[in-house]
Amino acid sequence: SNNFFLLSGPCAIEGEEMALRIAEKVVGLTDRLKIPYVFKGSFKKANRSRVDSFTGIGDEKALKILRKVSETFKVPTITDIHEPADAAMAAEYVDVLQIPAFLVRQTDLLVAAAETGKVVNLKKGQFMSPESMKHAVNKIQESGNKQVWITDRGTMFGYQDMIVDFRGIPTMKQYAPVVLDVTHSLQQPNQASGVTGGRPELINTMARAGIAAGVDGIFIETHFDPANAKSDGANMLALDRMEQLLTNLVKLRSTVNSLV
Amino acid sequence: SNNFFLLSGPCAIEGEEMALRIAEKVVGLTDRLKIPYVFKGSFKKANRSRVDSFTGIGDEKALKILRKVSETFKVPTITDIHEPADAAMAAEYVDVLQIPAFLVRQTDLLVAAAETGKVVNLKKGQFMSPESMKHAVNKIQESGNKQVWITDRGTMFGYQDMIVDFRGIPTMKQYAPVVLDVTHSLQQPNQASGVTGGRPELINTMARAGIAAGVDGIFIETHFDPANAKSDGANMLALDRMEQLLTNLVKLRSTVNSLV
Amino acid sequence: SNNFFLLSGPCAIEGEEMALRIAEKVVGLTDRLKIPYVFKGSFKKANRSRVDSFTGIGDEKALKILRKVSETFKVPTITDIHEPADAAMAAEYVDVLQIPAFLVRQTDLLVAAAETGKVVNLKKGQFMSPESMKHAVNKIQESGNKQVWITDRGTMFGYQDMIVDFRGIPTMKQYAPVVLDVTHSLQQPNQASGVTGGRPELINTMARAGIAAGVDGIFIETHFDPANAKSDGANMLALDRMEQLLTNLVKLRSTVNSLV
Amino acid sequence: SNNFFLLSGPCAIEGEEMALRIAEKVVGLTDRLKIPYVFKGSFKKANRSRVDSFTGIGDEKALKILRKVSETFKVPTITDIHEPADAAMAAEYVDVLQIPAFLVRQTDLLVAAAETGKVVNLKKGQFMSPESMKHAVNKIQESGNKQVWITDRGTMFGYQDMIVDFRGIPTMKQYAPVVLDVTHSLQQPNQASGVTGGRPELINTMARAGIAAGVDGIFIETHFDPANAKSDGANMLALDRMEQLLTNLVKLRSTVNSLV
Repeated sequence: SNNFFLLSGPCAIEGEEMALRIAEKVVGLTDRLKIPYVFKGSFKKANRSRVDSFTGIGDEKALKILRKVSETFKVPTITDIHEPADAAMAAEYVDVLQIPAFLVRQTDLLVAAAETGKVVNLKKGQFMSPESMKHAVNKIQESGNKQVWITDRGTMFGYQDMIVDFRGIPTMKQYAPVVLDVTHSLQQPNQASGVTGGRPELINTMARAGIAAGVDGIFIETHFDPANAKSDGANMLALDRMEQLLTNLVKLRSTVNSLV
Repeated sequence: SNNFFLLSGPCAIEGEEMALRIAEKVVGLTDRLKIPYVFKGSFKKANRSRVDSFTGIGDEKALKILRKVSETFKVPTITDIHEPADAAMAAEYVDVLQIPAFLVRQTDLLVAAAETGKVVNLKKGQFMSPESMKHAVNKIQESGNKQVWITDRGTMFGYQDMIVDFRGIPTMKQYAPVVLDVTHSLQQPNQASGVTGGRPELINTMARAGIAAGVDGIFIETHFDPANAKSDGANMLALDRMEQLLTNLVKLRSTVNSLV
Repeated sequence: SNNFFLLSGPCAIEGEEMALRIAEKVVGLTDRLKIPYVFKGSFKKANRSRVDSFTGIGDEKALKILRKVSETFKVPTITDIHEPADAAMAAEYVDVLQIPAFLVRQTDLLVAAAETGKVVNLKKGQFMSPESMKHAVNKIQESGNKQVWITDRGTMFGYQDMIVDFRGIPTMKQYAPVVLDVTHSLQQPNQASGVTGGRPELINTMARAGIAAGVDGIFIETHFDPANAKSDGANMLALDRMEQLLTNLVKLRSTVNSLV
Repeated sequence: SNNFFLLSGPCAIEGEEMALRIAEKVVGLTDRLKIPYVFKGSFKKANRSRVDSFTGIGDEKALKILRKVSETFKVPTITDIHEPADAAMAAEYVDVLQIPAFLVRQTDLLVAAAETGKVVNLKKGQFMSPESMKHAVNKIQESGNKQVWITDRGTMFGYQDMIVDFRGIPTMKQYAPVVLDVTHSLQQPNQASGVTGGRPELINTMARAGIAAGVDGIFIETHFDPANAKSDGANMLALDRMEQLLTNLVKLRSTVNSLV
């Protein structure tokens, strides 16, 4: 159908009930809208600003929940890994391994992910140019794995802001399918509180601009109660607003596909 | 029709023949596509990097050509002004006065433009936040002129690059209609040569993203022979590619208008 | 004596009494410390964020005060100009014409300043690279005036911050004597209030780093009562702290001069 | 003696002979100049831009050379670690564990380093504000280790440039002793070649400005033959230029110590 694909779910796997509840809702929407869907959830949060932030419910416990989501709804799943030893472990449970933006220059981690044979989703470093993502893609491909995506989550702009450089989308599409991470590109890092801020009212604007600029996929974190999510609540889309967003993006994508 | 409007023409008025030739072509397209059109041309280039760059054919001569374009094709015209004394002079010939981005903090210039009663198009300074454009808009409105537009031409990103921050579009639409300057937002300033560079292959990407993000207007410089234009050739759209671009943008805008 | 030189005074000339009071104090210090001194004061503030900000006491009135300072204390003076017609006017009263950072790309203004035969002090645009200041210097020199300085007042870093790039000092010293503007490089622009913020507690750090990096001059705004100054109070040095600052800088400069 | 301290050595341990040769030279200089010295060498390069870049001679082999340097010259040593399991291993051989800038948000790595009881040197992330380093320092201290340093290696400025923000030095000194990494702060990342560029002619300027701004230590990579070093040759100081640099910095530091 040449539709965009969707990577979506909560920031962190907080428990089985919440994961299944979110997945059920998004699976229902994406089935109806014919959007290829990958359920997203982190089994561990490894790079929180503060040492007292929530980091997870236990690695294996969270990974088993990801597998249960996959089996229950027949959807592929994605999770992020943080050190080379995570790669083989996570690959037993999920379909796509994601490399966090801060870690996308760590060669050992990329090679370990590539060697699992799973799809590897490389987050663009906040400190990297679109052009330099070619080298990261090469690290996967030269390890014998041709299934690699790039996800743009914005670029540092001063200390407390990020900007998405839409010029980079056509550039990076030369290397791999490109996903726009609408959630994290709206982050405002380095806040005095040690808690990353955000501007969730801009989710629609960013997602629409991404579709118009030709992205292959959209990444969006969602929760039925963002204000009580254990991480990244500042930018998550409320689950009950997902239908309207996706409906609009599908219409827009259809028009973009028809342009000459 | 709720279509976007278009500010377009050559960078500088190089002569009557070229101005009329460009206007005729764009007027034909915009009439057919029902795009409200304002013919753009600078009567003077006041801030070239180098002292030996082309600056114009003479102020009054260029302004008279702008008037001739207006009378010939029944379209409004826009030109940029550089010091307070320019405002009244230019206002005799054109319909919209544009404040260059470098000058948008110069209160006297803004007040002089406002006092002509013409529409004032404020370019967002490359050094200004979307939010701070509110103060510039206020300077026009508090001078008794309610007709003011904001045009975003990108924001400095390092020394040799600019980025359009699409988050700023909804912000600035709270203050005034917002135009995306596709041409100058692709500039690459501070090049070693003293000649500003560009990436014209990205014009389509930027314009589409702008329409999807909700801009009210598109600004795009065009020339039938960009390589021989006397200024800003690096980013101008070839005139014969304008039809395809506008056709696509009109389709996209129509879909954006239908989103819920 | 190979000391650094000092450009200092209030942001704006608010009246004769305050100008003379500040000049007397700084002249006393710089005489004793053998620092070549130029008294600084703006006769007009042309680019305030908000239309309701203080802009001056009257152009000619302020310029006459600058002349009185010069005659009273036998020191040269500097003021900034904003449009070409200001150049000849200001040149009748002061010794150095300063081009504001926002305006350093305006060719007509630079040429008008150059043609007065006065020293021209070019503020580096917040949007310019050190290397691109060569073109601005060339505009002065090619107008027949060889007396040109460059003053660095920081470079945009995100929307609400500026950074001084000390790598640029040796670069710009190839083109002209280089001054570090300690006051404005600590500005924090685009604040929500429309009033530029600052971090005056860092004046010592910046000035010392500048001397160590080899600047030829230091620019610093001062007032006996910064909290009640009519503009830029956020970053001005209290006059009674000037002695300690200059004493330290002279010692540091002497050591820097002795390095091999 | 209240002198600054020095972290210096080659980028990577390429072999025993080269390590001893560099250490011998620097130990001789720092003994004479009374500069506390820590020998620096990476046992592994984990985040090269390209997969075909040199990554090391073998972890244990390199660590044993670091121990040999320490025993031969009675100097402490520092090396960088990349995953939690590295911490205990490296701590058997060296005195200071360094966290690379890209990894300074990885909580597990910081905690593992802290738990060795060794001094931990945190490189400031290129994407972090000075203020946000407080949270990284807290992760070490709350793990029971009070010996922590911060090393500034510059902040992203656009895609292909870094700037040192000297305003951050007093800020970070509130949290821990601050070191200026003169070598890496002159890097120019994201070059088209996939090989990071540099501007080594600016080493003197940066180091002097750092001392004047009050840093506690200087980090500088050196090699007797930078052009043939296996990594980071673009910014390394030639070993035979070290004496002049350090001699100047010691003089400057002595003056800075005497300021009031």
